[in-house]
Amino acid sequence: MNRDAKKRAVLLLSGGLDSATTLAIMKTLDRECYTLSIDYGQRHGLELDAARSIARAFSVVDHRVVKIDFGQLGGSALTDSEIPVPTAPTNGIPTTYVPARNTVMLAIGLGWCEILKAPELYIGVNAVDYSGYPDCRPAFIERFEKLAAVATRAGIEGQGVSICAPLIGMSKSEIIEKGLELGMDYGQTLSCYQPDKNAYACGLCDACRLRRDGFAAAGVKDPTNYG
Amino acid sequence: MNRDAKKRAVLLLSGGLDSATTLAIMKTLDRECYTLSIDYGQRHGLELDAARSIARAFSVVDHRVVKIDFGQLGGSALTDSEIPVPTAPTNGIPTTYVPARNTVMLAIGLGWCEILKAPELYIGVNAVDYSGYPDCRPAFIERFEKLAAVATRAGIEGQGVSICAPLIGMSKSEIIEKGLELGMDYGQTLSCYQPDKNAYACGLCDACRLRRDGFAAAGVKDPTNYG
Repeated sequence: MNRDAKKRAVLLLSGGLDSATTLAIMKTLDRECYTLSIDYGQRHGLELDAARSIARAFSVVDHRVVKIDFGQLGGSALTDSEIPVPTAPTNGIPTTYVPARNTVMLAIGLGWCEILKAPELYIGVNAVDYSGYPDCRPAFIERFEKLAAVATRAGIEGQGVSICAPLIGMSKSEIIEKGLELGMDYGQTLSCYQPDKNAYACGLCDACRLRRDGFAAAGVKDPTNYG
Repeated sequence: MNRDAKKRAVLLLSGGLDSATTLAIMKTLDRECYTLSIDYGQRHGLELDAARSIARAFSVVDHRVVKIDFGQLGGSALTDSEIPVPTAPTNGIPTTYVPARNTVMLAIGLGWCEILKAPELYIGVNAVDYSGYPDCRPAFIERFEKLAAVATRAGIEGQGVSICAPLIGMSKSEIIEKGLELGMDYGQTLSCYQPDKNAYACGLCDACRLRRDGFAAAGVKDPTNYG
């Protein structure tokens, strides 16, 4: 094995602002990047298209899309068309929360890490402007890493998988500032939970609100097309 | 809420001998049973048919099948048709191991528990005759339970999900004896990794060998149709 080989890493890439910025950060760390999108029956496929474009723009080694029909189980506004996406702030955990979503996505990413013998798995969660989802917090990431150490062949053989969440302590505006510093084109990313067919964002859902507020706080122009 | 209500529980039901026996045990514990099969691109769908029959035979409240195309990532003889299923014992972890499979399946089960507000998630793993898979051991189950406590809305609100693996310390023959004691019809279960189209088992793969040896050790007749 080439001792100068780049460190191989898998990233969960959603097509949104956070995971795209994570990819920009991985590039500065000279990682050999593999990106994975999970098609979990989210309301629109535009997010998956955005992920593909971002993967291409960053010249990742490989980009895969794994489909899982979470809609079978229902329980979230993002996978069940009978539950409307809220367009005003809600108390507590909103209905856009998909039960155990990050646990499932990290588990699939862990499987790919094992196949690729990649020692790192990146995820773009942040615990500051995080919409109140339980699976975006540091305690969750730490416990997943402990699980990973005993869950895989590599773990048993002594090489665990580190779960890397470089944005976890950053606010949305700090994430945007970091991305712009790294030359990120946020026009390629799509945050909205319910864009129209022309990929115009609604401007009202949780994800749009966090994004708008983030650009405003960073004092930079939001390139998003709001319909 | 009815204080005499049965305890609600989700079971990962594969159609094999172990998860079927786990269902029989749950019934003796008076659980309100929900069963979940994961279609992860295993070589044959007969296993999923067996799971459906078993769910029906035990009158579960609901049985769901969630499809995930693990085959996208490859890496296992069970999901990649280019890797042959071994027909003789192998050293170490065999090629039939699907990377992170139990982590993914438990994660999906955890999501369903959260939707159903079920405090228990059952899995039929056993660490004794377990083919050498890393994700069948007690340390794995314990760490998944710790993850579950911080991964979900229910966990945050104080009600975690217990991961129940009642077979974990049992040998295959003890599992079979327990199941027969509970009236289990093992003719309904299918263990083989590569049955033919008439559902005849090969008798040679890991799963067949463990099953045959288990029946032999228990001193009872194996109802399996070996081709």
